[in-house]
Amino acid sequence: MASVDVPVALLGYGTVGAAVDRLLSENADDIERATGHRLRVVRALVRDARKERGFAPAPGVLTTDFADVRDDPSIALVAEVMGGIEPARGHVLDLLRAGKPVVTANKQLIAQRSDELFPAASAAGVQLRFEASVCAAIPVIKVLREALVVSSVHRVLGIVNGTTNYILTRMEAGDTYEGALSEAQRLGFAEADPTEDVSGADAAAKMAILATIAFGSRVTLADVDFEGIERIVPGHIVAARELGMAVKLVGQATLAGGAVDARVAPALVDRHHPLAGVEGAFNAVMLQGDSIREIMLEGPGAGGIETASAVVADMVSIVGTQGTGFLQNDAVWRTLRKLPPGELESPYYLRIEVDDRAGVLAHVAERLAAHGVSVARLIQHGLAGGASLHVVTHEAPAGAVEAALGDIALLPETHGTPTRLAVISDRGVAAAG
Amino acid sequence: MASVDVPVALLGYGTVGAAVDRLLSENADDIERATGHRLRVVRALVRDARKERGFAPAPGVLTTDFADVRDDPSIALVAEVMGGIEPARGHVLDLLRAGKPVVTANKQLIAQRSDELFPAASAAGVQLRFEASVCAAIPVIKVLREALVVSSVHRVLGIVNGTTNYILTRMEAGDTYEGALSEAQRLGFAEADPTEDVSGADAAAKMAILATIAFGSRVTLADVDFEGIERIVPGHIVAARELGMAVKLVGQATLAGGAVDARVAPALVDRHHPLAGVEGAFNAVMLQGDSIREIMLEGPGAGGIETASAVVADMVSIVGTQGTGFLQNDAVWRTLRKLPPGELESPYYLRIEVDDRAGVLAHVAERLAAHGVSVARLIQHGLAGGASLHVVTHEAPAGAVEAALGDIALLPETHGTPTRLAVISDRGVAAAG
Repeated sequence: MASVDVPVALLGYGTVGAAVDRLLSENADDIERATGHRLRVVRALVRDARKERGFAPAPGVLTTDFADVRDDPSIALVAEVMGGIEPARGHVLDLLRAGKPVVTANKQLIAQRSDELFPAASAAGVQLRFEASVCAAIPVIKVLREALVVSSVHRVLGIVNGTTNYILTRMEAGDTYEGALSEAQRLGFAEADPTEDVSGADAAAKMAILATIAFGSRVTLADVDFEGIERIVPGHIVAARELGMAVKLVGQATLAGGAVDARVAPALVDRHHPLAGVEGAFNAVMLQGDSIREIMLEGPGAGGIETASAVVADMVSIVGTQGTGFLQNDAVWRTLRKLPPGELESPYYLRIEVDDRAGVLAHVAERLAAHGVSVARLIQHGLAGGASLHVVTHEAPAGAVEAALGDIALLPETHGTPTRLAVISDRGVAAAG
Repeated sequence: MASVDVPVALLGYGTVGAAVDRLLSENADDIERATGHRLRVVRALVRDARKERGFAPAPGVLTTDFADVRDDPSIALVAEVMGGIEPARGHVLDLLRAGKPVVTANKQLIAQRSDELFPAASAAGVQLRFEASVCAAIPVIKVLREALVVSSVHRVLGIVNGTTNYILTRMEAGDTYEGALSEAQRLGFAEADPTEDVSGADAAAKMAILATIAFGSRVTLADVDFEGIERIVPGHIVAARELGMAVKLVGQATLAGGAVDARVAPALVDRHHPLAGVEGAFNAVMLQGDSIREIMLEGPGAGGIETASAVVADMVSIVGTQGTGFLQNDAVWRTLRKLPPGELESPYYLRIEVDDRAGVLAHVAERLAAHGVSVARLIQHGLAGGASLHVVTHEAPAGAVEAALGDIALLPETHGTPTRLAVISDRGVAAAG
C-alpha cells in the first residue's frame, strides 16, 4: 500500500509537545507499518518561538499565530498539549469546526467542557480523542470504547493519582504523611503546592471522564464527591494492616439501579484485591462488567514521555480508523535471530541439597564464582542427613548458571541434581518509586 | 448517521459461538452507537443442525454446508469459533481469499499457521483478527497493535495459563500439587487430561503469538522452550515465601541485541512485582517498553462468555476501522440520575475512640444494629485514657452508616468524632477461584 503523508500540528511545544514530535519522528516506520500513514509535525503553536526546546522542531515549524494552524488546509490532524481551559478550549472548538480531528491530553478540558466539545466534533463529523487525559500511557479509554463495547461495564475502580499513591506507599513503609509528601516533592511526584493531588480533585476529574465513557451519561467534575488523604494518619495504616488491608485513595464509579455514583476517597483495600498491590506512583483502573468479570490495567499514570505516548496512540488511532484503517495484516516485518538459550540473562534461584558439614558452602560458592555467577541471597535449611541451600543469584547468563550447577552436581558432598528457576523481580520502574 | 446492516457468519456454534450470537443480539444498540453498524448473525456452520443449543439461533441460520457461508456475497464478516487446525485452517484461507474479513479465537491456528494465513489476508486486502486466541477478554493484542505502536516493547512477561496459576495459588495456601490439580478439575479449570496446561504447552502457544506481535518477527510454537509445573513441590513454595517471592508459571519474551527469546517456565516472582499478585485462574500480561515503562493487563484468561466478548470486540474493531470507523464523537447517549450519596452500598471501616469500660461495646453495637448495619470484624486497642474500636461492617448504605455514627458520636463514652472509610474487597470473581 502506498504511504500517505499526513501533516499534523501541535498546540503547545513544552515537555509533552516536544516528546510527541520526537516519538512521531523516531517511530515513523512503525506508524506506517500499522496504518499506512507517515505523520509529520509541520506546525507547532507556542507563545515564544525563540525559547530553547528539549527536542528541536524542524525549521519553520514554530509559530505564535493560531491562524497558521487553523487555516492551513494541509494540516490533517492537531494535538492539543498546551493545558489549561483557555485558550485551549477556544482553539479546539475552532479546529473541530474547521473539520480537523483533534487529540487532547487536557484532563480539565474534557472533565469540564465535554458537553460543548463533543457536539462540535459530531457536527463537523471529525474525531476528538483524549486518551492522555486519564492515566497517561495506560490505554483505558481505547479499551473502554473499542474493546469493551459489549461488556456492559457497571463499575470502575481506580487508583488514578500517582502522587497520593506514592505518599500512601511511603506511609505503609513507616513514613509520616508530612515526610512522605516532602519526599514526593523532592522526587518531582508532587507539586510545590500539592493541593490538587492530595485533596482528591485531580482524581475526581479523571473519574468524571471514566464514568462518562463507561456509562454513556454525562458526569462532570461537579458530580464527583471527593475527599483527599490529608487526614490519613499512621494509625489508619496500622489498623488497615491488622485487618489484612491497605489504605489507598480510590476512585469509584458505580452504575446501580439506573443511577450513577462517582466519588474519590481513601478506602481500605483487601490485600488480595489487585488494587492493593499497586505501588508507588503507578496508576491502575479496574473495569467490572457482565461479560468480562473484571479487567485491570496498570502502569505509569504520569510523565512527559508516557503522556506523549498516549497522544501519539490517539493520533495513530485517528488515521487507523479512517482512510486505510489499521492494517491488520501480518505483524511480521523482520526476521530476528533466536537468542541462544544460554545467553538469556536473569537472576536465578538455585536449590542444592548437600551434606551438612564445614566447607560445603565454600565449595559451592567457589564453583559459582568460577563461572562468574554472584550470590545475592542465601538461606540454608537443615534436612534429615544433610542441608538444603537456597541461593538467589544476581543477573547471570543461563549458560553460566547451568555450567556452575553442573560442576556443583559433581561435588562429592552434593546430593541429587541441583535445580534452578528464573527469578522475576525487576520492574524496569525503579525511578517511579 | 444512517445505520448500516452487517450480515455476519459463524464457523461453529458451540459454547463460544452461541455466546457470540447472544452478545451481538443483546448489544446491537451498543455496537451501533460505537460504529454505526448493526451486526446480525445470518449463517452458522455446524456439524449437526438438529442439536440443542445454549442460545437458539434464528430460524434458518444453522447450516452444515461451508459453501453457504463462503459463497454468500452478503456476508461481510466471519468469526471462526470451531477450534482445531483442520478444517478451520482451510475454511479461514477460503474465506480470506473470497475477500471476507475473519476473526478467530483459535490459538493453535495462529501460533502454528500464521505464516500462511496472514499473507492470504494481505493478498486479499482484508483483516484477520485474533484477540480471543490469547487470554480471552483481556485486550492485549489490540493494545499492542493499536495503542502501543510507538512504545518499542522489548519484553513481554505473562501469566497466561489460568489452570496452572490456580494450582500454584492453591499450593501457596498449603495444598499439594495432586490435591490442587483434582480441585481444578472438579471446578472445570483443568481438563480430565491436564497435560496441555500443566506442561506449559498452552502457555507456549500464547507466548509465540505475543512475541510475534510485540517484536514483529515470526515466533512459532516450535521456537518457544517450555517447562511445566509438574515438578513443583511444596518445598519450592516454602523456599519462595522465605525469600519474599511466589512461584508462578511465567511466560517471557525478550528482545535483546537484535535477537528474540521466548520461553515458559516456573519462576520465583518477587512479592512486590505486579505478577505476584495474580491469583487463581486469572491471567496477566506485562508489556515493558521505552515510552511506557510497563503496562500490565489482568483479567480472566478463559471462559465461554469472556472468549465470546473478545471475538465480538474484534468484529466491532473490523467494522470500526473501515467504512464509518469508530465513531469517536460524544460518548453520552443517555441521562442517568445521580445516585443519592446515602444510597451507595459498601462495606465500611469505622474508627471509634471510646472509654475503656464495660458496656461501651454493647452501646456501639446497639447503635449500629438500630440502623441495620451489621458487623463483620472488630478489633479493640487500648489507648491512653480509653480504647480505639476498629470495625469492618458488612455491606450497608452510606446513609445508614453515617446515621449510626451520628448516634455513636452522641454516646457519653465516645471521644471525638468517629470516622469511616469505604472497604474495597469484592472482586466480583469469586467463581474464578
